[in-house]
Amino acid sequence: MEIISEQACFGGTQGFYSHLSSVTGTTMRFAVYQPAQARGMKVPVLFYLAGLTCTEETATIKAGAQRLASEFGIMLVMPDTSPRGVGLPREEDDWDFGTGAGFYLDAVKEPWADSYRMYSYIRDELRLLINEKFNTDPDKTGIFGHSMGGHGALTIALKNPDIYKSVSAFAPISSPMQCPWGEKAFTGYLGTDKASWVDYDASELVKNGHRTSHILIDQGKADQFLEEQLKPEIFEAACKEAGQPLTCRLHDGYDHSYYFIQTFMEDHIRHHVSILQKS
Amino acid sequence: MEIISEQACFGGTQGFYSHLSSVTGTTMRFAVYQPAQARGMKVPVLFYLAGLTCTEETATIKAGAQRLASEFGIMLVMPDTSPRGVGLPREEDDWDFGTGAGFYLDAVKEPWADSYRMYSYIRDELRLLINEKFNTDPDKTGIFGHSMGGHGALTIALKNPDIYKSVSAFAPISSPMQCPWGEKAFTGYLGTDKASWVDYDASELVKNGHRTSHILIDQGKADQFLEEQLKPEIFEAACKEAGQPLTCRLHDGYDHSYYFIQTFMEDHIRHHVSILQKS
Repeated sequence: MEIISEQACFGGTQGFYSHLSSVTGTTMRFAVYQPAQARGMKVPVLFYLAGLTCTEETATIKAGAQRLASEFGIMLVMPDTSPRGVGLPREEDDWDFGTGAGFYLDAVKEPWADSYRMYSYIRDELRLLINEKFNTDPDKTGIFGHSMGGHGALTIALKNPDIYKSVSAFAPISSPMQCPWGEKAFTGYLGTDKASWVDYDASELVKNGHRTSHILIDQGKADQFLEEQLKPEIFEAACKEAGQPLTCRLHDGYDHSYYFIQTFMEDHIRHHVSILQKS
Repeated sequence: MEIISEQACFGGTQGFYSHLSSVTGTTMRFAVYQPAQARGMKVPVLFYLAGLTCTEETATIKAGAQRLASEFGIMLVMPDTSPRGVGLPREEDDWDFGTGAGFYLDAVKEPWADSYRMYSYIRDELRLLINEKFNTDPDKTGIFGHSMGGHGALTIALKNPDIYKSVSAFAPISSPMQCPWGEKAFTGYLGTDKASWVDYDASELVKNGHRTSHILIDQGKADQFLEEQLKPEIFEAACKEAGQPLTCRLHDGYDHSYYFIQTFMEDHIRHHVSILQKS
């Protein structure tokens, strides 16, 4: 692991790091905010998964989470959203597929299968690296994210409740099998057999018996992607039917941007803290 | 004035706007955060002047000020740092002169004198436009800024205590006549006669009898520009000698970035609120 930069922020340290990933075969970058509390004790760790086109820098700059991580003594990890520079054909052509659009799954279709493995990267390699290099309490691990990253957080949490004790999402793609972004990504990375898609669809996972702790979702009603891509009502219905605890809040006037996310960041950090404290 | 965008944020509205400036002769952009309180009453207004290379977007995205403006019911105005696209020779060549480096002064040297007039733009044209178009209380106007914008805030406040009731700065260029950035800018915009420079040097203004309300300055001790460019000790000595109230705090480990600024933003907003409440 190499240090790209480390800067003081709210009494702790905002760092950017890189490492050669054996899962993706590329150099991956990520950001970590270490609160001052981590100097003297192991602290809870919260992974934030960003959305389409974003990098490890996006939420680090825009989400306003460091102040809260400092206040509550939480470590924040902000990974990149895909491998970079693999050199695959069409990798850079679309903003919603390939670079910046890894969809937090392990691709099985060539030529993506060797490198586009963000599910294993986030769940295994990066998580273990963080726990090795930083002063975290692995038993107090949470995950959240935005849009494509909300999809990532929900699916990863639902499939690994033993690892991720708390989960939340901002404007998640919560039923990717039923929206254009998800259909395009799943077809490209997983192939046309939809039987394999259900393993990466939060609504289908809930229907199929997967469970996690109480989920918090915030969604803006002025979000330009709400009706066509995000469809929280499908996930809500699945959770209600299955008895999966969920608080899904819709907010007048808010869109899909980080002005929305920063507004509700404190509620999300408090949600994670309240669950991780008991875990 | 044209609306570029308006987005919900912390119960208020983060907007980006443009207008044709008669002072610079160009289309100027600026950002305004309107807290919810401004829907029902005139609220205090705080101008934030950004540093070299920045735009109206920089602090809007990175400073974390909207949350506090929402809490305290303050309107935030974030202007651009220079005219753009005037088409002057060498305008785009350097990052510390010309575009993005207007230094909040009125140039007198050709070819800059017609358009590089950020002092009059900020103090007169933009301020009056804001008071006309938004629900502000002009008697409760404050100003702050970072680096070059800290220089701007200090000089503008010292010269206009009747307009700006409160002032603070993050890592300001507080004696530009005695640092390379200032010498380059003043020579280029004002010419080589240093008698005209004192009118835009905060330390010289204090020495020459200008006064304002109690000033708050925060400065990181790990700031890469501290010794060569910023030199707060010169301004501190001038204030002490002249009896100008100043709190200048030096912070271990903090650099020149917005990770530093966001850390101390709450202290600055509280400083302005406490003074503007009484004005």
